[in-house]
Amino acid sequence: MKIVIAPDSFKESLSALQAAEAIEAGFRKVLPDAEYVKVPMADGGEGTVQSLVDATQGRLVETEVTAPLGNPVKAALGISGDGQTAIIEMAAASGLHLVPPSQRNPLKTTSYGTGELIQAALKHGIDKIILGIGGSATNDGGAGMLQALGVKLLDEKNRAIGFGGGNLHRLARIDLAESEGRLKNITIEVACDVDNPLCGSFGASSVFGPQKGATPQMVADLDRALRHFAKIVKRDTGIDILTPAGAGAAGGMGGGLLVLPNVVLKSGVQIVTETVKLAEILRDADLVITGEGRMDAQSIRGKTPIGVAKTAKVYGKPVIALVGCLGDGYEAVYGYGIDAVFPILRNSGSLADALANGYENLLSAAQNAARLYCLAKQNC
Amino acid sequence: MKIVIAPDSFKESLSALQAAEAIEAGFRKVLPDAEYVKVPMADGGEGTVQSLVDATQGRLVETEVTAPLGNPVKAALGISGDGQTAIIEMAAASGLHLVPPSQRNPLKTTSYGTGELIQAALKHGIDKIILGIGGSATNDGGAGMLQALGVKLLDEKNRAIGFGGGNLHRLARIDLAESEGRLKNITIEVACDVDNPLCGSFGASSVFGPQKGATPQMVADLDRALRHFAKIVKRDTGIDILTPAGAGAAGGMGGGLLVLPNVVLKSGVQIVTETVKLAEILRDADLVITGEGRMDAQSIRGKTPIGVAKTAKVYGKPVIALVGCLGDGYEAVYGYGIDAVFPILRNSGSLADALANGYENLLSAAQNAARLYCLAKQNC
Repeated sequence: MKIVIAPDSFKESLSALQAAEAIEAGFRKVLPDAEYVKVPMADGGEGTVQSLVDATQGRLVETEVTAPLGNPVKAALGISGDGQTAIIEMAAASGLHLVPPSQRNPLKTTSYGTGELIQAALKHGIDKIILGIGGSATNDGGAGMLQALGVKLLDEKNRAIGFGGGNLHRLARIDLAESEGRLKNITIEVACDVDNPLCGSFGASSVFGPQKGATPQMVADLDRALRHFAKIVKRDTGIDILTPAGAGAAGGMGGGLLVLPNVVLKSGVQIVTETVKLAEILRDADLVITGEGRMDAQSIRGKTPIGVAKTAKVYGKPVIALVGCLGDGYEAVYGYGIDAVFPILRNSGSLADALANGYENLLSAAQNAARLYCLAKQNC
Repeated sequence: MKIVIAPDSFKESLSALQAAEAIEAGFRKVLPDAEYVKVPMADGGEGTVQSLVDATQGRLVETEVTAPLGNPVKAALGISGDGQTAIIEMAAASGLHLVPPSQRNPLKTTSYGTGELIQAALKHGIDKIILGIGGSATNDGGAGMLQALGVKLLDEKNRAIGFGGGNLHRLARIDLAESEGRLKNITIEVACDVDNPLCGSFGASSVFGPQKGATPQMVADLDRALRHFAKIVKRDTGIDILTPAGAGAAGGMGGGLLVLPNVVLKSGVQIVTETVKLAEILRDADLVITGEGRMDAQSIRGKTPIGVAKTAKVYGKPVIALVGCLGDGYEAVYGYGIDAVFPILRNSGSLADALANGYENLLSAAQNAARLYCLAKQNC
């Protein structure tokens, strides 16, 4: 009997690998002789670097980069076990958590540090970068990232425009001549699960600006600035970053990335699924276990368990999800390949307690799911 | 497919019948055509009257009785659907919850009201009383209960001794001549799941006295008083209430009851199991679902799910438990016939929230247990 265990991390409680270990421990109490394959998963959001490093037996590399307000910050990127892929989370260099709430101002915050992380990755001789762009503090259209990679963003007097979305309206010319040449030899897969265009009422500034500290006036200014940025990019490079779906992701980072060669925006869980070769692994499985910290009606939009289930159902495999908590409307997941869902909480109490008891609770839930599975199966 | 649903109540959240309804609703989403038999269960503790009234389509009868400190209180007893059995919870008349904490004094509290409930039951032409004796405020050896039933407890001057364990040391003589005659024609099954003797360091006063408000001095006085009570009972009636296991239950109520004719102390869940004819019902079942508010290492001591599982395993039936919360060491239940256990909580948060969401959470857990069962069974 082959059981594939492919959970996401349980945020603030367990990494995906730890979650997989807890699930395996629970199942082993019931099915000690089954074959277990643990596949730490992610959806392109927080935890993606750790999961893919764990899944590929890779390593973390720490480097110093520029935080959103210009100060230095340590950030890690992942190198896969085969050395061919770098994994980067934008949030590590340009995340909202790096800016104190009182200083959040997307006119000023820059994505420069993410560009530095890409630079750092290039030094490792990789041929692919997986870039997760969730959780950013920026609304600069990825301009800072481009600057870090040698793209010249110049004003009327041929001086570099400064950092932040608030300077984009001064952009007069974009020059790719001195941009990082190694980018031509690699592909960048951007984990992007939103469809927002760069500008307009569903654009980066309107939808994501406020949560980064933008006032209504800032939103209007930033939207106008990004539109100007797109216009100059189009004029000087021929590249359209205004209209593609996903260009508005991460404060326009989705759009800025399109200026680079060989960039594709894809579903985060699809990138991870392909990277860990999940289809190959579960093709001959008898049972698939997945999980995440929270499952609810929104989980059908690109969350890891749904991605795992989608792959599993290609081969008709049963899928059980074990989850930290279960919100209203979660039953929608039944229509997306999840066969049964069990919340793992054992007692009422604070979220802090629940997070602290994650391993034990998950092990217990796995054990009982295994027991019921075997009971019904009558052949375990 | 026949599914028997036999849960206890989820204390402060759902009656056993409501719990059974939630479980059925969850299962019906997955197995709409199965045959469902709901059997509200109890273990002789709180909720036993409601469960047996619900299980037998009986009724509640309210009456006014004497509370532990002598004031009047409304209390209900149950009459089974066939009119032959009365169900009484001692706590309804003599419960600790009826005495404000500042007034808790087991020298004074009387079990008289429980005797009145028995009197009230006799008026309904029943031939059996089921009496649950948990949760009492008293340490009077059941003396008050006996007084209410016409047993004379007299002092040296042939005057009735007063109420409360504190008066027992004045007992000079016990006279059954005028006691309730109808007791001879009925049996009383006392739900009793503790083995404590009447006196000594494992006796009623030492073990249960403190939680009823007894100071160390009171414990010593009460223990001596109960020993004196037993001596007089033995001398005047020949009945030994000092040594039987369970005589120390409910402040010596277990012992006092032995003075009456046709009284048996039995496991509470066994009484309930027999009353609802659980064995007959689940003999041809395919699956048995039970549950309770909390399952932990102590659950193996006479709690409802274990009683249900014990009966189910006589016929080799699979048993799933759905529980409000799950304490450490709960895995002990696996050795007692419970095949798998699922806690029903869906979110972290207060106990109050958990109790308020009991129905929805239980329904959800039942639905997912059914889904996993069918998935593994592959024939639902």
